[in-house]
Amino acid sequence: MNSKYKVVKFKKDKFKKTDDLVSIEEPLEISLKYKDQNKWVTNILSITMRTPGHDEDLVRGFLFNEQIIQNINEIDNIEGVGKKVGQYNIQNKILITLNNSKNINISKIKRDFLTNSSCGVCGKSSLDALEIIKKDKTSNTEPKLTKEIIIQSPSVLRKNQSEFSKTGGIHASGLFSSDGKLISLREDVGRHNALDKMIGNALNKNQINPKNQFITCSGRLNFELVQKVLMTNISLMIGVGAPTSLAIDLANRFDMTLIGFVKEYSFNIYINNQKVILN
Amino acid sequence: MNSKYKVVKFKKDKFKKTDDLVSIEEPLEISLKYKDQNKWVTNILSITMRTPGHDEDLVRGFLFNEQIIQNINEIDNIEGVGKKVGQYNIQNKILITLNNSKNINISKIKRDFLTNSSCGVCGKSSLDALEIIKKDKTSNTEPKLTKEIIIQSPSVLRKNQSEFSKTGGIHASGLFSSDGKLISLREDVGRHNALDKMIGNALNKNQINPKNQFITCSGRLNFELVQKVLMTNISLMIGVGAPTSLAIDLANRFDMTLIGFVKEYSFNIYINNQKVILN
Repeated sequence: MNSKYKVVKFKKDKFKKTDDLVSIEEPLEISLKYKDQNKWVTNILSITMRTPGHDEDLVRGFLFNEQIIQNINEIDNIEGVGKKVGQYNIQNKILITLNNSKNINISKIKRDFLTNSSCGVCGKSSLDALEIIKKDKTSNTEPKLTKEIIIQSPSVLRKNQSEFSKTGGIHASGLFSSDGKLISLREDVGRHNALDKMIGNALNKNQINPKNQFITCSGRLNFELVQKVLMTNISLMIGVGAPTSLAIDLANRFDMTLIGFVKEYSFNIYINNQKVILN
Repeated sequence: MNSKYKVVKFKKDKFKKTDDLVSIEEPLEISLKYKDQNKWVTNILSITMRTPGHDEDLVRGFLFNEQIIQNINEIDNIEGVGKKVGQYNIQNKILITLNNSKNINISKIKRDFLTNSSCGVCGKSSLDALEIIKKDKTSNTEPKLTKEIIIQSPSVLRKNQSEFSKTGGIHASGLFSSDGKLISLREDVGRHNALDKMIGNALNKNQINPKNQFITCSGRLNFELVQKVLMTNISLMIGVGAPTSLAIDLANRFDMTLIGFVKEYSFNIYINNQKVILN
């Protein structure tokens, strides 16, 4: 599933307004109905951010790969539940009924999974749910960037990474001042960890000053990464790869500027609420 | 952190044995000590796969970005705990003591986090812990592949993806027969979801036959992805990007063949237990 988003593309020294197709990212709340000591129970197993479509395949594979079931026949029924929500009008909840309590790995379910309460993120709109957390914070920053600084930031990141040139398999996040100076950099095999480490380092050194800073991440931009940046109040985020629909929607809701697909001579501006000045 | 691994590189029509640096991936068990109704409690908050190093920054950023703390000063102490484990001899457990129970978002902690039991994966070796789950299964397959089939599989995947050419921001996993025919393909913004969907689809159609099949994934290969493939008993896995240390170790422990960094004319064989024949 994908959706059309407006984008400003910078290419061959020109800016052009156009439409861009973006992969959809939406939460899915996975619930299990199973017999535990001869009583039917229903529990929320897990919540995952996924591209809608083939949700039944997703939960089949997830249950088998996590060894909650040993055999696909232990699934009796899979159904989307709850009302259709959000701009794509889809069900973000799915219920799986398991038919063989002997084979089901109940102890594994209890140990590794089971979210305790229902998911505000799936039940209504993910963005509404986040607004509750974020209500007393606003993005009020106005870093001014040149297009050179935008284009250079991923290569500054790469040049300063100690690990990438060695292994080619590690992500990085960097905190930059709006004149392009690198302030904090951290690496990790996980994109979310690289960002947590970088923000943790900057917080600890009291280096965060949202008015004049931006964050650049290697790889693609998803909901989780934008959410983490949002917490710092930094309103300008750059990604080397493509953003998901929810990353763009979240950036828009909280007045961020979101730039993606940064190459040597081009980039895409998905959301420009901070009215970044490009010379 | 990285480590040296032996690899067979295929390049310019030649195979060459060499060493390769690989990014380390290890689990981290994050525990919180905090006052809940005037009583000190210690609970395991979360387990994440990370590259060791800057673990203190990681937990600082994680607690702040997840809004468990509002301010970095609410952290009183961070310390590595438990004995050093694994081949890199590092602590995979970290304990954070929080000093201000008024500000700490206890209800959020209870709702969103709190793993119920201690982590077998962090306490000893991750691979030992997995062996318990996987004890009655062995990889006993012997697909024979040509180097052309290895090199072509990522482009077969891309050509058959409905979404990638549109958005450039979506992962894919494919199940192939050893003669290179695509059997099952699924896409998702999350690598793990794409693999779960693909395996779920193949399981549901009763298409999995480990003796003559392999799986190719876009992107990098980590522990989680190899673990999922392991559950299908398919013993040959190909990734477009770099593998992590734990991906290689896991593949090796369970007699898989693991191939990564597949480009138009080159690839790396990290582990070749299945003695794939390359013509």
